[in-house]
Amino acid sequence: MIDNPYYSQDNHGPYEVVSIGDLHLEEGETIKDCRLAVATHGTLNANKDNVVLIPTWYSGTSKIMGDVYVGSGRALDPAKYYIIVVNQIGNGLSSSPHNTPAPNGMRNFPKVRIGDDVAAQHRLLTEVFKINRLALVVGGSMGAQQTYEWAVRYPDMVERAAPIAGTAQNTLHDKLFADTLVEAITSDPGFNGGSYASSADVLKGLARHATLWGVMGWSTEFYAKRRHEQLGFPSLDEFVTNFMVEYFRSMDPNDLISMAWKWQHGDVARNTGGDLAAALRRIKAKTFVMPIDHDMFFPPIDCERECRLIAGAQFRPIRSIDGHLALFGADPEFIKQVDQHLSELLNSPAT
Amino acid sequence: MIDNPYYSQDNHGPYEVVSIGDLHLEEGETIKDCRLAVATHGTLNANKDNVVLIPTWYSGTSKIMGDVYVGSGRALDPAKYYIIVVNQIGNGLSSSPHNTPAPNGMRNFPKVRIGDDVAAQHRLLTEVFKINRLALVVGGSMGAQQTYEWAVRYPDMVERAAPIAGTAQNTLHDKLFADTLVEAITSDPGFNGGSYASSADVLKGLARHATLWGVMGWSTEFYAKRRHEQLGFPSLDEFVTNFMVEYFRSMDPNDLISMAWKWQHGDVARNTGGDLAAALRRIKAKTFVMPIDHDMFFPPIDCERECRLIAGAQFRPIRSIDGHLALFGADPEFIKQVDQHLSELLNSPAT
Repeated sequence: MIDNPYYSQDNHGPYEVVSIGDLHLEEGETIKDCRLAVATHGTLNANKDNVVLIPTWYSGTSKIMGDVYVGSGRALDPAKYYIIVVNQIGNGLSSSPHNTPAPNGMRNFPKVRIGDDVAAQHRLLTEVFKINRLALVVGGSMGAQQTYEWAVRYPDMVERAAPIAGTAQNTLHDKLFADTLVEAITSDPGFNGGSYASSADVLKGLARHATLWGVMGWSTEFYAKRRHEQLGFPSLDEFVTNFMVEYFRSMDPNDLISMAWKWQHGDVARNTGGDLAAALRRIKAKTFVMPIDHDMFFPPIDCERECRLIAGAQFRPIRSIDGHLALFGADPEFIKQVDQHLSELLNSPAT
Repeated sequence: MIDNPYYSQDNHGPYEVVSIGDLHLEEGETIKDCRLAVATHGTLNANKDNVVLIPTWYSGTSKIMGDVYVGSGRALDPAKYYIIVVNQIGNGLSSSPHNTPAPNGMRNFPKVRIGDDVAAQHRLLTEVFKINRLALVVGGSMGAQQTYEWAVRYPDMVERAAPIAGTAQNTLHDKLFADTLVEAITSDPGFNGGSYASSADVLKGLARHATLWGVMGWSTEFYAKRRHEQLGFPSLDEFVTNFMVEYFRSMDPNDLISMAWKWQHGDVARNTGGDLAAALRRIKAKTFVMPIDHDMFFPPIDCERECRLIAGAQFRPIRSIDGHLALFGADPEFIKQVDQHLSELLNSPAT
């Protein structure tokens, strides 16, 4: 356990930390007194049927989800919906390697799967919030992985699902990309097998990790059209140093590695003995599959294959040369398309 | 200078090493007694008009170019053409960091540009081989960069040009990707600022570099269609370890870094004060621009933009889910398409 002021109410709040008790994990270990950091927007209605659940992505927190995807007049309007953003385990706000006391913290934090997050969120919603229906689950990237897992695992609870830029079963290519992210960090001598005093000790590794995100996170067209200049960075070097590295440099290395492992092992087919088609057949939610056309590691073709296995699902690719990190919301056209699809989905009758 | 048995006639021969004298470089330094390793196929005809020049790509040598692209009954048929494959400076066979004696070798090897290679090759062809016409220049990746440079710099000498999976002006995205390749190597403590006793000292860095190639070199569809299994590797890990890492592990780190810098700085617009359109307007060669549709870092759209700036150039994308490393020739459909395009190009009258 180490103190890391990056993960604070000042930076990511407001959020509430809720204990859901001991969480037994798929890999066999237990997170004792598992805490989930939760941010809410809007009000639960009397019928308790206006709930939107948003899980978070790799390195993201509830803050960016609220800032970029929730707002008055938007598809996810707090005036209409009770929006619950749950920070994934390992993201630094919920139970994570860096904030878990010894002997179970840091390098000893147990392996957590997408399914564990969804089981934890299910307990939070049903036992703490007393909610049994979700009008929509929507998330990007690892948030999409959780969205699929929700729809497969609790088909009678999830009325609509919008996985954005993510897959139900992680691909080999993504596995390999995430390997390089992990190696970038763990190869830094300052990482020291996961025992360090502060993220600053692992800055070189975190910077290499950030540069890899610079290559794969955006797209070839992002750079060809000099989007980094439009975003205020006069040169490639300044963009990498002052945006990409700056974004990741204060994050906790063990937290990132915990999430990377979870990302790599995301697979709804674990619910059906390895049969992906059978898993996706379980989904009853009205589903819009929303990849981003220039995404370099969750490409539309991977998402379309899965879409075809979900009854009634619609394939709704989003156009943005920002690629995967269009999720950050810097491209207003991306946000506009997301809102259009989500509005349409929310206005569709539940199946 | 260190001994590295990887770079040998046994592994990459037969080739001949030809000295072209001192080579003054664009960056201001000089390679003394610059040596180019050259492999030839076929016979120069009496008119000296059947010459095909093939420059090499990053990490590649004349061996793979001969094995994969030259053959009886192929477009590049030694019975018809005199095919000259020139190993690029820094590739380990020609003058390179690892084979240059102190004090100019290893980390002190000067920065070499694509233009320097082309100037060196021009001297070799005109002064040693006494050749003044090239029926075709064809190369992949960094070989495409050299092909463009040839066509821009010596428009009256190059009758046809076929840049495959490469650009005339390197992109920012490629610059960043190559940065990650270099960082993967230089961050290995065994690299020691470029002073090591053998590649084995830098194995961890070379392995990380190889894994990055695993992500970007192939394509998302390559892994989705489990091409690595078709190629004889039962798992992703085995493919990475026994193919990707195995491929790079014996190469010289300083040699790779020298080539990476050259790749990053490739730009024909240096010939025209930074004006890319003006540079490409110089080209008189009949040009087929041949990107690979699933290439993750020389995508067709980047190549098409340049194609439109070349008078009479034809855009001939090649379909292969092997992505950039389709260049290795493991996809027979890739080879078939390359041969069809090259045959058509060679049978077209020079412009």
